[in-house]
Amino acid sequence: MAENTAEFRIEHDTMGEVKVPVDALYRAQTQRAVENFPISGKTLERQHIKALAQVKKAAAQANLELEVLDGERSQAIQDAADLVASGEYDEHFPIDVFQTGSGTSSNMNTNEVLATLATRALEGSGTEVHPNDHVNASQSSNDVFPTSVHVAVTAALSFELIPAMETLAGSLEKKAAEFKDVVKSGRTHLMDATPVTLGQEFGGYAAQVRYGIERIKASLPRVAEVPLGGTAVGTGINTPAGFSARVIELLAAETDLPITEARNHFEAQANRDGLVEASGQLRNIAYSYMKINNDLRWMGSGPNTGLGEISIPDLQPGSSIMPGKVNPVICEAAIQVAAQVIGNDTTVALSSTNGAFELNVGIPVMAANLLESIRLLANTSTVMAEKMIDGLTANEERCRFLAEASPSIVTPLNKAIGYEAAAKIAKHAVANKVTVREATVELGYVDGEKLTEQQLDAALDVTTMTGPNT
Amino acid sequence: MAENTAEFRIEHDTMGEVKVPVDALYRAQTQRAVENFPISGKTLERQHIKALAQVKKAAAQANLELEVLDGERSQAIQDAADLVASGEYDEHFPIDVFQTGSGTSSNMNTNEVLATLATRALEGSGTEVHPNDHVNASQSSNDVFPTSVHVAVTAALSFELIPAMETLAGSLEKKAAEFKDVVKSGRTHLMDATPVTLGQEFGGYAAQVRYGIERIKASLPRVAEVPLGGTAVGTGINTPAGFSARVIELLAAETDLPITEARNHFEAQANRDGLVEASGQLRNIAYSYMKINNDLRWMGSGPNTGLGEISIPDLQPGSSIMPGKVNPVICEAAIQVAAQVIGNDTTVALSSTNGAFELNVGIPVMAANLLESIRLLANTSTVMAEKMIDGLTANEERCRFLAEASPSIVTPLNKAIGYEAAAKIAKHAVANKVTVREATVELGYVDGEKLTEQQLDAALDVTTMTGPNT
Amino acid sequence: MAENTAEFRIEHDTMGEVKVPVDALYRAQTQRAVENFPISGKTLERQHIKALAQVKKAAAQANLELEVLDGERSQAIQDAADLVASGEYDEHFPIDVFQTGSGTSSNMNTNEVLATLATRALEGSGTEVHPNDHVNASQSSNDVFPTSVHVAVTAALSFELIPAMETLAGSLEKKAAEFKDVVKSGRTHLMDATPVTLGQEFGGYAAQVRYGIERIKASLPRVAEVPLGGTAVGTGINTPAGFSARVIELLAAETDLPITEARNHFEAQANRDGLVEASGQLRNIAYSYMKINNDLRWMGSGPNTGLGEISIPDLQPGSSIMPGKVNPVICEAAIQVAAQVIGNDTTVALSSTNGAFELNVGIPVMAANLLESIRLLANTSTVMAEKMIDGLTANEERCRFLAEASPSIVTPLNKAIGYEAAAKIAKHAVANKVTVREATVELGYVDGEKLTEQQLDAALDVTTMTGPNT
Amino acid sequence: MAENTAEFRIEHDTMGEVKVPVDALYRAQTQRAVENFPISGKTLERQHIKALAQVKKAAAQANLELEVLDGERSQAIQDAADLVASGEYDEHFPIDVFQTGSGTSSNMNTNEVLATLATRALEGSGTEVHPNDHVNASQSSNDVFPTSVHVAVTAALSFELIPAMETLAGSLEKKAAEFKDVVKSGRTHLMDATPVTLGQEFGGYAAQVRYGIERIKASLPRVAEVPLGGTAVGTGINTPAGFSARVIELLAAETDLPITEARNHFEAQANRDGLVEASGQLRNIAYSYMKINNDLRWMGSGPNTGLGEISIPDLQPGSSIMPGKVNPVICEAAIQVAAQVIGNDTTVALSSTNGAFELNVGIPVMAANLLESIRLLANTSTVMAEKMIDGLTANEERCRFLAEASPSIVTPLNKAIGYEAAAKIAKHAVANKVTVREATVELGYVDGEKLTEQQLDAALDVTTMTGPNT
Repeated sequence: MAENTAEFRIEHDTMGEVKVPVDALYRAQTQRAVENFPISGKTLERQHIKALAQVKKAAAQANLELEVLDGERSQAIQDAADLVASGEYDEHFPIDVFQTGSGTSSNMNTNEVLATLATRALEGSGTEVHPNDHVNASQSSNDVFPTSVHVAVTAALSFELIPAMETLAGSLEKKAAEFKDVVKSGRTHLMDATPVTLGQEFGGYAAQVRYGIERIKASLPRVAEVPLGGTAVGTGINTPAGFSARVIELLAAETDLPITEARNHFEAQANRDGLVEASGQLRNIAYSYMKINNDLRWMGSGPNTGLGEISIPDLQPGSSIMPGKVNPVICEAAIQVAAQVIGNDTTVALSSTNGAFELNVGIPVMAANLLESIRLLANTSTVMAEKMIDGLTANEERCRFLAEASPSIVTPLNKAIGYEAAAKIAKHAVANKVTVREATVELGYVDGEKLTEQQLDAALDVTTMTGPNT
Repeated sequence: MAENTAEFRIEHDTMGEVKVPVDALYRAQTQRAVENFPISGKTLERQHIKALAQVKKAAAQANLELEVLDGERSQAIQDAADLVASGEYDEHFPIDVFQTGSGTSSNMNTNEVLATLATRALEGSGTEVHPNDHVNASQSSNDVFPTSVHVAVTAALSFELIPAMETLAGSLEKKAAEFKDVVKSGRTHLMDATPVTLGQEFGGYAAQVRYGIERIKASLPRVAEVPLGGTAVGTGINTPAGFSARVIELLAAETDLPITEARNHFEAQANRDGLVEASGQLRNIAYSYMKINNDLRWMGSGPNTGLGEISIPDLQPGSSIMPGKVNPVICEAAIQVAAQVIGNDTTVALSSTNGAFELNVGIPVMAANLLESIRLLANTSTVMAEKMIDGLTANEERCRFLAEASPSIVTPLNKAIGYEAAAKIAKHAVANKVTVREATVELGYVDGEKLTEQQLDAALDVTTMTGPNT
Repeated sequence: MAENTAEFRIEHDTMGEVKVPVDALYRAQTQRAVENFPISGKTLERQHIKALAQVKKAAAQANLELEVLDGERSQAIQDAADLVASGEYDEHFPIDVFQTGSGTSSNMNTNEVLATLATRALEGSGTEVHPNDHVNASQSSNDVFPTSVHVAVTAALSFELIPAMETLAGSLEKKAAEFKDVVKSGRTHLMDATPVTLGQEFGGYAAQVRYGIERIKASLPRVAEVPLGGTAVGTGINTPAGFSARVIELLAAETDLPITEARNHFEAQANRDGLVEASGQLRNIAYSYMKINNDLRWMGSGPNTGLGEISIPDLQPGSSIMPGKVNPVICEAAIQVAAQVIGNDTTVALSSTNGAFELNVGIPVMAANLLESIRLLANTSTVMAEKMIDGLTANEERCRFLAEASPSIVTPLNKAIGYEAAAKIAKHAVANKVTVREATVELGYVDGEKLTEQQLDAALDVTTMTGPNT
Repeated sequence: MAENTAEFRIEHDTMGEVKVPVDALYRAQTQRAVENFPISGKTLERQHIKALAQVKKAAAQANLELEVLDGERSQAIQDAADLVASGEYDEHFPIDVFQTGSGTSSNMNTNEVLATLATRALEGSGTEVHPNDHVNASQSSNDVFPTSVHVAVTAALSFELIPAMETLAGSLEKKAAEFKDVVKSGRTHLMDATPVTLGQEFGGYAAQVRYGIERIKASLPRVAEVPLGGTAVGTGINTPAGFSARVIELLAAETDLPITEARNHFEAQANRDGLVEASGQLRNIAYSYMKINNDLRWMGSGPNTGLGEISIPDLQPGSSIMPGKVNPVICEAAIQVAAQVIGNDTTVALSSTNGAFELNVGIPVMAANLLESIRLLANTSTVMAEKMIDGLTANEERCRFLAEASPSIVTPLNKAIGYEAAAKIAKHAVANKVTVREATVELGYVDGEKLTEQQLDAALDVTTMTGPNT
């Protein structure tokens, strides 16, 4: 039989004895998992540990109300859960993300840490708090762990990502107002098109970000639905009547989130489709960010050989060999974040294939990828707003020069002279390097009948081209 | 100069003359595109051609109301559009899916076919209908083509996929009722767990399908939003005031779909995020179908060396070498459809990177993949319901036998004797190949105090284990 | 009992009777599959039917040599297989791609068509050829069907894609030579960098295409390895000794491809990793094509508001509203093909999850996607070469103008005056809109010591900057 | 002007002054990057920092030989590089992975740390070592950083992943030998098929792992090819003649890896296709591991309601509610790793779209994902071997029982009585729950002519069914 030492103490579980670091709040099952999974070095995200503690707190309260736990133990568990939720004991959650697919190890880690803290708090009273019989009472890893992921994701979306996206949308909207009279060439197929204002473009980007927020919100009803109360397989075995509804009510109050009970506990237990849906919306946002950042860096390309329509704030020297070069580094960081989020989404969605019958066994990796993606997108939104958009300026003259250089400004003449004649003018202008106005005159279309000189001037005003006919 | 022959006639456009098959309703630009893109042999989906025609019809009407077109031409275009919408002229849409990324070729194909049909209808009146100046009046490929995709996708989702999924959910719900008393072993981590009923499992599958419908519906507000009226770059250049709102009102009425105007025309013109969102929901459904079909074929595995809990209808001989073998072929077809839909989704989402400034130039391939995915999922839903679920039967005795064989039926004893003692019983039962009841007695836990024989019998009733405590 | 009619005849299999179209060469099992899988409307690719016939021919010959078949039947099957391989009877292969995952239906379709053709050829002799007992002798769908996919893919890669890529690489190399003296601005981070020649860039594109060919060839050893001879589960049950080696030798000769026998028949039977590897290489090529086509269309952007460094051949009018606009349509088609190939690759790779124990049941969908991808990439390579690269011209003056405008041409001064001083010059030039030469002088760096005027001129020659120091 | 304090010192670069932590070895540009990119908290992988240092060492030596650097500075840089390569100073590399897409920040970080260490080493001599002018001499981030990634990836593949995969393959091969006489039922479509041995299956898994190694090796020629010497845009501007070849020769020697010079420096500079190829092979291996682990956990499913053919070592309690349950946790961790690697691969491949002209600006994220994937797969291979495969045992009796229960053991009778008669026997056996032998007799097929009782017994020996006819 093993012995306690200065470094280790002996703990046991249903499989026997285990040596645990002497200061660890966790016990045997956590230690086994630490030893079984030396894989990535990555542990649970902060938001995730917090959510696990919140679930345990709500369960301890419901168990008290439904007479599964006595008041003393319930209170001790709830107090311990508050401490863990605060982040004070994160180092006592050392298990790798790549562990058992149900997250049982992390659920037991939570049970063990809370049992230790609660038992210590009750020291002197002689009352022991058991990880399974008390902390985990009326619960199973199979409902607790997925619930913790849905809670953590809902929290991270609501409290981190959406506010950061609102900041970004706000920054873009400010620029949309600032640039509302900056006329520039539109571009379709990368080719010269009819004019737009830079403000219209930034307004479009802002809208795209706001649609992203709308997408998240559209998925929240299913993301915020949790299997808690289903215990082992969705049937609610070993729960008192009414437990599921009550514990979720308490959890919603504790987290200040619109958490709801699974409408069908077997659907909720057997797959993690709600997480896949949330991940799909993050992917959508990532692609939106790619588009916006690609547009921005193209508009800022140059200074002399590119489009040069805007100036992106200088943040750092851009080359170790080309002196004076400055690059759109925030755009690049953001696009890389987008690529990461899209890859993480593949991992999350693919993990659906890791489900069979009453359980998906890819939950920890789904959680890690989703929560990382949310964190990355939130930080990137803020960085984009503060380090790039807010300081971005328009090169107004250059914009107007290019707008007027586009042969597509011939478009308003369609109504007067028809599409085919207008095409002749555009081609003539490009081939002979003259303006559209010059080409129109040269080709004899200003006949005073279909088209007068005055009408031509009115038609070729690039500013009026940025809206419908008036 | 080229000459007309028995096989070809000469058409021209702004780039010159083109030889077109003599019976073709299309003209020069379509023919150029046919020659430029000999790539896949795949042309636009039926739903897509229909939607293009519907857009043209609505535009002709709005153009009449807003005095862009005269009544004669407007009516002729609308009549022609009805014919094309009906499918009668699909063979006159020969352009490859892999074409210009704006779909300009297919928009012009539609303009040309309608111009030809309308001009013919007006024969004798001397009135010509021009593809650009009349059929395309107040429009651009850049708003018409994406609008047609959103319309076609909204229609296919609403009129094909959702009804088919409802059929499937209904079939599953019928089985959930039929199997509500068939107790079987739950399985988590593929290992023996506490009991569930087969009805609970089928109810879960039905719910999963219904959540899929809910996901589609949650995305529809953004899928049904269209850029029509933005013309070339979102500004609405060359449209009469009020055109966008009116043409979309007419389009919604014509299609009987909740089509709405883009809240921001620059967002709507510059990216196809709404299509990516729809595709993400289809991916979610595809993963759901994978899970359901994998469960079903495992439950039906055997007949003698597998789980053997259900019997899937025999549809065809299963092996060219192993006589008498029958396989779960519908499950396999459905899983392959899921893999295709998930791949198509990659194509759709990745096409986001194909956008810059005022236009995404990956629209035709997005349309083709989305519409194929919807068609595949719709057909598969129906085939699953009719050829598999409706005829599926439970092997009730086998199910109960396995339920009672699971060592996890020890779980209700936790409350009486604690988790650790219960673990000893389960391990003893497995190691000694005795029942959980026998193991409990053998290990002396029926002490008449914590546990009486009567309580033991009540605790080990697998049927009561399929719900919370009562 | 059903009766023959003018439209249908009655066929039977081990499950009973089936009505088959009276002219069909196929029989009962094909008909069942047609009815069971009304899903996509897509049938096997041409290359795939051909490969199936080639396998059957080789098997019939090996069966003759190893005394499983008599000479009469063997010859009749081989003759029939030649006809099917030629494409004459493709319409008799009506089964949907989305069918049983082993392709048993299509293997039986082949067996039935060949049995019918062979029996007809032997008419008068009274000899019947049975689909299972003769055409399929010593075979199982589980080795025949995957073998046919590997053969078809190897053929399509070798005979279609590689030659088309060589055409494209050749076109690019011709342009690399043609443009070898066209100096232009390099671009990194989209920002002005030191000069390159347009020829260097096109040489890089050509190399990228040739590396793609190298990637295909690196995977061929594993793609061309086939499970034939393993029959039902890899053991070779029901084959005569020596069958696997001999039939594959015959198959290699028949197809003129380096087909080899699986080194481990259980690996070969149980997964389709070789196909996933081939698909991964196609994905790589697709991303290469995206890069090349994006570069090309940016270089061709304009004519007046973009980079305008090259002119891409005009192929068709580019806008239904903007007259005279022409777009880089081949680039766009190619990028869409790339997106499709990348999505198809997701489908192929994901289908790996559809394998369990001795069989993957996602083979038909893997085959369809791989063969489509190869066909798309081959056609696109040819179209790119012939319709775009061959006719592409450089705007040489514009290129040189931009090269000299780049502030990064200060880079060679690092050696003389250090990176930090050079940075000052570059910043001064941009801020004051003067040339780098002017800025160097203005800031007093031409001191006749570290830097003479002559050295400055030598250092700022953009042509010498396109290589290492000499 | 800022002042030095106890916590910070003032550093400057071409953009001005920056406050740097007083003990930091890095300088201004690193500090700017730390402040610009507060995104993920993830920094470069250990292997990556090592490779950067190795590149710098080789460059310092080549610069000495080619007279770009003096001996004193060259040696000081080389010594400093050795220290950084050893891992001693990893904490001085604080920049986020999500930074400028060229990795310029991390290249400058390396330059700054080495300049500081080298300058310190030369203290007293009065010689300064400048980050750009000396440490980075003849180099650019644009060739150094991608080179460092290719070196790190080649090292990690060669020294970590391949050896770990060989360990796993070895473990599987040992089991293949141990289980060579354990006959079990084959399974195709999850349905009962003809017999195989468990040894054949494990031999197949081992082969699959060894093919994975072969795949890595097939990609190495292109992964180990590096752009070093191309500097800013591939032209080798600011390098002495012969630099590229020599520095790469030194780098290969230093790293003991088959590093080679890019055959085309423009291809090598402009895209990272070689990394995408490596990532594709990792994806392939990940899918292989999914297949193997899924098979294993299904074979180990039970103990009483599943297949129960093997016993996977017990590592930890499997449920917080179901006492005594043990789950296949290593399989689950491995499948989750596979999902992560497949997602990481999406990120790597998609990053290809982040390239334009002479540079891809997604390199840091490609590096981070690739190196993580290699590390995860290497650790998982070892964990699988040591914690699962080595201790795995066969349930031999159960295996044979199921093998003999499979109706597909009728297959050898095809030759004697034909496929259709054999099908009747199989169906009769299943329907009447009798053995295949009994069914054959009952249906009268033992007629002493086509089939004697002795022949029947020989035909139904499951052991002889695990190979071809003899």
